Amino acid sequence: MDYRIETDSMGEIKVPADKYYGAQTARSLQNFKIGGERFPFELIRALAIVKKAAALTNNELGLLPEEKKDLIIKAADEVIEGKLNEHFPLVVWQTGSGTQTNMNVNEVISNRAIEIAGGKLGSKTPIHPNDDVNKSQSTNDAFPTAIHIAAVEEIHRRLIPMITKLRDALQEKAKEFSSIIKIGRTHLMDATPLTLGQEFSGYAQQLTNGLARINDALNRLYEVPLGGTAVGTGLNTHPDYAVKAAQKISELTGKPFRTAQNKFEAMAGKDALVELSGVLKTIAASLMKIANDVRWLGSGPRCGIGEIVLPANEPGSSIMPGKVNPTQSEAMTMVCTQVFGNDVTINFAGASGNFELNVFMPVIAFNILQSIRLIADACESFTDNCVVGIKPNREVINKHLNNSLMLVTALNPVIGYDNAAKVAKKAYAENKTLKQAAVELGLLTEEEFDKFVRPENMVGPNKK
Amino acid sequence: MDYRIETDSMGEIKVPADKYYGAQTARSLQNFKIGGERFPFELIRALAIVKKAAALTNNELGLLPEEKKDLIIKAADEVIEGKLNEHFPLVVWQTGSGTQTNMNVNEVISNRAIEIAGGKLGSKTPIHPNDDVNKSQSTNDAFPTAIHIAAVEEIHRRLIPMITKLRDALQEKAKEFSSIIKIGRTHLMDATPLTLGQEFSGYAQQLTNGLARINDALNRLYEVPLGGTAVGTGLNTHPDYAVKAAQKISELTGKPFRTAQNKFEAMAGKDALVELSGVLKTIAASLMKIANDVRWLGSGPRCGIGEIVLPANEPGSSIMPGKVNPTQSEAMTMVCTQVFGNDVTINFAGASGNFELNVFMPVIAFNILQSIRLIADACESFTDNCVVGIKPNREVINKHLNNSLMLVTALNPVIGYDNAAKVAKKAYAENKTLKQAAVELGLLTEEEFDKFVRPENMVGPNKK
Amino acid sequence: MDYRIETDSMGEIKVPADKYYGAQTARSLQNFKIGGERFPFELIRALAIVKKAAALTNNELGLLPEEKKDLIIKAADEVIEGKLNEHFPLVVWQTGSGTQTNMNVNEVISNRAIEIAGGKLGSKTPIHPNDDVNKSQSTNDAFPTAIHIAAVEEIHRRLIPMITKLRDALQEKAKEFSSIIKIGRTHLMDATPLTLGQEFSGYAQQLTNGLARINDALNRLYEVPLGGTAVGTGLNTHPDYAVKAAQKISELTGKPFRTAQNKFEAMAGKDALVELSGVLKTIAASLMKIANDVRWLGSGPRCGIGEIVLPANEPGSSIMPGKVNPTQSEAMTMVCTQVFGNDVTINFAGASGNFELNVFMPVIAFNILQSIRLIADACESFTDNCVVGIKPNREVINKHLNNSLMLVTALNPVIGYDNAAKVAKKAYAENKTLKQAAVELGLLTEEEFDKFVRPENMVGPNKK
Amino acid sequence: MDYRIETDSMGEIKVPADKYYGAQTARSLQNFKIGGERFPFELIRALAIVKKAAALTNNELGLLPEEKKDLIIKAADEVIEGKLNEHFPLVVWQTGSGTQTNMNVNEVISNRAIEIAGGKLGSKTPIHPNDDVNKSQSTNDAFPTAIHIAAVEEIHRRLIPMITKLRDALQEKAKEFSSIIKIGRTHLMDATPLTLGQEFSGYAQQLTNGLARINDALNRLYEVPLGGTAVGTGLNTHPDYAVKAAQKISELTGKPFRTAQNKFEAMAGKDALVELSGVLKTIAASLMKIANDVRWLGSGPRCGIGEIVLPANEPGSSIMPGKVNPTQSEAMTMVCTQVFGNDVTINFAGASGNFELNVFMPVIAFNILQSIRLIADACESFTDNCVVGIKPNREVINKHLNNSLMLVTALNPVIGYDNAAKVAKKAYAENKTLKQAAVELGLLTEEEFDKFVRPENMVGPNKK
Repeated sequence: MDYRIETDSMGEIKVPADKYYGAQTARSLQNFKIGGERFPFELIRALAIVKKAAALTNNELGLLPEEKKDLIIKAADEVIEGKLNEHFPLVVWQTGSGTQTNMNVNEVISNRAIEIAGGKLGSKTPIHPNDDVNKSQSTNDAFPTAIHIAAVEEIHRRLIPMITKLRDALQEKAKEFSSIIKIGRTHLMDATPLTLGQEFSGYAQQLTNGLARINDALNRLYEVPLGGTAVGTGLNTHPDYAVKAAQKISELTGKPFRTAQNKFEAMAGKDALVELSGVLKTIAASLMKIANDVRWLGSGPRCGIGEIVLPANEPGSSIMPGKVNPTQSEAMTMVCTQVFGNDVTINFAGASGNFELNVFMPVIAFNILQSIRLIADACESFTDNCVVGIKPNREVINKHLNNSLMLVTALNPVIGYDNAAKVAKKAYAENKTLKQAAVELGLLTEEEFDKFVRPENMVGPNKK
Repeated sequence: MDYRIETDSMGEIKVPADKYYGAQTARSLQNFKIGGERFPFELIRALAIVKKAAALTNNELGLLPEEKKDLIIKAADEVIEGKLNEHFPLVVWQTGSGTQTNMNVNEVISNRAIEIAGGKLGSKTPIHPNDDVNKSQSTNDAFPTAIHIAAVEEIHRRLIPMITKLRDALQEKAKEFSSIIKIGRTHLMDATPLTLGQEFSGYAQQLTNGLARINDALNRLYEVPLGGTAVGTGLNTHPDYAVKAAQKISELTGKPFRTAQNKFEAMAGKDALVELSGVLKTIAASLMKIANDVRWLGSGPRCGIGEIVLPANEPGSSIMPGKVNPTQSEAMTMVCTQVFGNDVTINFAGASGNFELNVFMPVIAFNILQSIRLIADACESFTDNCVVGIKPNREVINKHLNNSLMLVTALNPVIGYDNAAKVAKKAYAENKTLKQAAVELGLLTEEEFDKFVRPENMVGPNKK
Repeated sequence: MDYRIETDSMGEIKVPADKYYGAQTARSLQNFKIGGERFPFELIRALAIVKKAAALTNNELGLLPEEKKDLIIKAADEVIEGKLNEHFPLVVWQTGSGTQTNMNVNEVISNRAIEIAGGKLGSKTPIHPNDDVNKSQSTNDAFPTAIHIAAVEEIHRRLIPMITKLRDALQEKAKEFSSIIKIGRTHLMDATPLTLGQEFSGYAQQLTNGLARINDALNRLYEVPLGGTAVGTGLNTHPDYAVKAAQKISELTGKPFRTAQNKFEAMAGKDALVELSGVLKTIAASLMKIANDVRWLGSGPRCGIGEIVLPANEPGSSIMPGKVNPTQSEAMTMVCTQVFGNDVTINFAGASGNFELNVFMPVIAFNILQSIRLIADACESFTDNCVVGIKPNREVINKHLNNSLMLVTALNPVIGYDNAAKVAKKAYAENKTLKQAAVELGLLTEEEFDKFVRPENMVGPNKK
Repeated sequence: MDYRIETDSMGEIKVPADKYYGAQTARSLQNFKIGGERFPFELIRALAIVKKAAALTNNELGLLPEEKKDLIIKAADEVIEGKLNEHFPLVVWQTGSGTQTNMNVNEVISNRAIEIAGGKLGSKTPIHPNDDVNKSQSTNDAFPTAIHIAAVEEIHRRLIPMITKLRDALQEKAKEFSSIIKIGRTHLMDATPLTLGQEFSGYAQQLTNGLARINDALNRLYEVPLGGTAVGTGLNTHPDYAVKAAQKISELTGKPFRTAQNKFEAMAGKDALVELSGVLKTIAASLMKIANDVRWLGSGPRCGIGEIVLPANEPGSSIMPGKVNPTQSEAMTMVCTQVFGNDVTINFAGASGNFELNVFMPVIAFNILQSIRLIADACESFTDNCVVGIKPNREVINKHLNNSLMLVTALNPVIGYDNAAKVAKKAYAENKTLKQAAVELGLLTEEEFDKFVRPENMVGPNKK
């Protein structure tokens, strides 16, 4: 392979000739051969946005000449557009501050800017990775700022739209199923009836609440520590830098980012991300319930609950012809277990800061962005490949409804709780219908039974 | 022991003569000999508030006669005041809906009301545990409503005040220490300086944010499912019941409870509690960081960091005279690990509902109320027995500050990054001060060094 | 209240006159008003066993006179027998080494021994809490030794017997149900048949494996750090002390305790307990599966799977007569969620040691002993109140078996996979039996169908 | 792009012409656009080993002709050797049984075998993906067998060697540092001394125990469900198949795999993997302690504990010249937090099986293999880039040792505990050495002090 020599304060090191990254990235590749997990592009992109915002701010404050700013922005834009993805090879398991990935971005922007300017890769001239690209920053404020940017952008780009999409599809089904009366179940046991639409309306409401939860967490995610530099004091930054740089980020992203009220909190803790993960696991709890209900309601086709029919997307078992499985529910519930585990990782990491810095940032970034993506993608897949195609099995629904002993509840006000209990017990013991039992007990005529036991009157409060 | 006979639909059962509880409580004691964990009083109290609110509402709606209402309220008030605590013997590990504890409350109120009315215990006359005390309710809406009430009340009574107390104490210290300059630490390694006050201001901010997080979660906790009865439809309730009953709870507690927008969501999911637990674990992450910093900063007294001195509350080791340990930090960090574990329990339980009901309510209630109490109590103890007594060790702080090689950062703009690096490396290798190294390298005079390297200028952005 | 004055190195403090505990216990009560959680008796008992073993060993090594030894043993025996339980008031949330609880035990034994000897409480004569009761120990080796003793004893006394009891009950059912052929289910969907006995045999095997897992973990729990004193070096102990003291514990408990190979590992880490918790959570995963299957198989009675009937232990809903719920399964699954949460607490705590000591011991002890007890109790309750009373619902089982389309699998070798698939699809689409479909398609006669499709031939490998 | 048409029971579907996979893989790509996580090669390889073992066994039992067997083995060997990696594009988030990945392997082996035989891709002739490659298997027994194979092989290939490597390096350091006496620390506070070698010996012992834990878990991992087919009964398999196929796997891997005692347990539960994860998290707890100790002992260089010096692998902060961070510890501790989170995911997934199958297998496989790899890689990196280069800082160690007030413990037997306490307190209050304080108090002469206070006598039990 073709190499060039780059240098840093530890000395010289070989770098592949066709890569823009430099000495510190190369050194990280040597020292951290751990796993294969890389940051998603969104984090690299967010770091480039930080670089661009810093360059613009430094320029405005008279600290970076116009031509340097232009070069940095050109190169940063290429990173932002995803054109240089192959130049970011580092794994998650590196220094806990993310310095190596921050330097990777600095090096790539520096070398690409040098190339644009017609200079020599690795020369650090005219654009120096530290002095110019990283100007007025340290990893300690730039990296967590980038995590917030990436999380916020992915929340707006994918998470909210896809949760909304699923919520809307469920709401649509709630309307579609609003007149289908079915047996309710509590403790897995037959209970009083409700409509299939009411059941789905609960799912939709869970996600509506989830969206509100995200919104609350976003408010604190919009705060970024950029400008705190190494330890939160803002050493070596212009007094207007922090506020202005956050404003630039806001302009570049169209999201209301603002400078953190207290940079010491924002750099030493990662609480806003721990909180966000708490919201994501709450949404996972909602989705787990929904996906489980869907697969149980669709269980069968002959020997389960079978009240709904799910779309048949793939052939069934190689050994069992005609078998169709609730695979979208399975993918969704597996995603939820991953989000619950990621939450624990984030808790442990987020609680483990010391003094002026939390050095578990890469693992936090990796897990939070994975959770966001998985929930978003799974919501989309679950909507498109399952929810929109759900159909009621009216025959089974009606059979269950009519068989259920819990309709007896409607007789409480007519024949009293004790007599109603006798009816239910006789029907269960002798495997009869409630009507048969009631008539045989001489408590009601068939006509009376049909008048009082009307499931359609049992799916709401008493009439006014 | 003296017994009386009570009955339920399974038949007769012996009940201790001196207890107000009835058949279903006695049966639960027989069937669930598991662990010894009981619900805190706050949950029993909250259930009694539900009973009172229901009685008032039923009466207003013309469904419960005045004298029955009065009897129920008298008995419920005794429960609320904690006078009947010995009559609630059930453990957490029972039916997943909490029915047995709900019935325990119904039975105690019924029997106590009967006693007040001069009736015979167990006669269910004039106050029937189901027909009167439980009127317009099922456990499925009453129990989760009680969990919300208990959580909200404990949050207001203890959690917010105690977090605020700790926050204020930390803020006080931040002011007190605002002029004490000390070395910063990132990656546990010496970094650029900040003030001890700045360090503490970060802790205070973490808790200020924690209070905002609680506030967001409260908004959804104020929604209660009461009026949903068995499956969310409101079967057998008056159409105005749900709204009015929530209003009564609001009046009785002084907190803005309201009826849940969608009862199916509120009964089948426990998302508002999963979310709350997510907030509590975020606060635990903050507290873990704070308590760890405090014990590390106070480590020593001779061979640690030793920049602060913690109050000596107890004798040290029996074998090592003079040893004083950061025990308040230890209690706090142990509490945090419990909260992290409880959160996982709540996630698992909260995600495990099926159809119209979540039947993991008792374990959720137990864990969420434990987490609230532990955080509140630990904040109070940590404030009173540790934070208010923290003193700076100025001698050590100054020694560290003056020894630190990272002050060299101030020379970057004067002699350049490369020369600054030479100074730092020489000082480290030869175990000298930065000043010695700088002078020996001929880069600066002692006077120049003293002029540029001024920690007091390094604890904020550049001067305007 | 009546008080006496006790003293420690911090000075004087009031102690209730009717309690044996002394100054350090009193001080802990003042300084740690956090929660209400106390250690179970088993841990206090285990500490008293440590004291007894130490006294016997010290005496044998000539370091403790006969009369002192006898006094200590008399008092320790009273603690071991549970006679002095009211003298141990401390909460879990205290110093992370458990020193305060260790001193509580030292103080109670000292004062009770003094009383037996006719001395004055608080005089520390003739039995001094530190110099005599705590002789050759520090909390740092005594407390973790006690945790191991308590865990081992509870495992043998309750956990293994109760898991074994449940395993045996399941195995009994496996035999009882060995000839009942039923439909299998994968992905919640109908699959090929098996016997109900085979299904239960899987549950029994899970617990058999669980018992083997416990056995493996026990091997490392038998190692105790006693003799390591303050930091693992054994400072101030006789060179034979560690080995002999472990031997005494072994004699006193009848369990093969031995001195830890490396005291530094045994005191700084809590790995054996983290491992044990890993085994407990594995057993919880088994129990969760079993308890869930039981409640799903028993779901209904009319609108669920309904293949087994669970014992009716309590009356059902107040509003729904005849409702019986799978409450033992619910208690069991809630217990499992608690064990999963406790495991996370123990992981966090166990990973958080520093240097020569882990100071999260109280929270680890509390959680591990709770997990042991809850699993043991829940297994007993689940066996007695559920498993032994499970009955098959042969009518439903047969209906499901005969309806299932997956019996078509038996036709693969006769008419080929493709034709078999046609049969299954036609039967499903037209809501017919497989036999009808096969005959209508002209693929088989009724007689042929009956000859080949025999569920009893489908519950094992091909015949030889 | 160039396509061919493949078919399955759902009909036709386009497949890229240059890929060996078929219809079911293509369908999965359409239906599961979730995340980007793929199984590691080791799992695909393990599935191919299953296919090879099945083909060999089927052939031996007379169920698969010689030429078919040879073709399948040729193609399977190419998968095993990693030559066909680009043909396995599926993500983790698919059907919960892993059917789609099992079919992916079946399809690739089928098409590659067809190609070798000169046939037409997609023709299923002469090698049919289901009838030949999947013969005597269902995904339900083949996929979990493959997870066990992959886990066992990675444990032997990487996990045990790398933990052993780290353990040996720590043991080497323990020997190297065996005569360096240093201050001990409990509760982060100065305690009695030990040697640096003793401290490291504890770390080594933790890993020795970890290796024993792995060994115990392996015993149950060697059991494989292959031969259980769809639901555990072994339907459509030869009665000798299960035992023989496990034996073949054993021969192909050189590991003692055996057929599972009870196939229902082995397919419906995933307990052996939940247990293994419990072992991995225990090892993570050990590694977290070790890596934290290393970074704290190396903290400084001037203002921390600074008793050891870690290798400087990368340049420090861009803003703070000379800064070197304990990055290997940071990578290791981040890995540990990931393992703790993965464990929770695995617990949740492992507890969520129903009836005859656990349908959370892909997420379990993904997480367990990630945990194994991360621990192994991190151990190697931590050893090579950190542990082997650790050097003691004797100057700091001696300063701490000599300054420590806890050496006073050695005076207990000479001047009594009370006088010793006076010495320690005076030294602390007046910031003096113990010797100064002792002499000033007139308790000892300098010579006496030097005779009794000898750290080298404090690092073990009393001399015999």
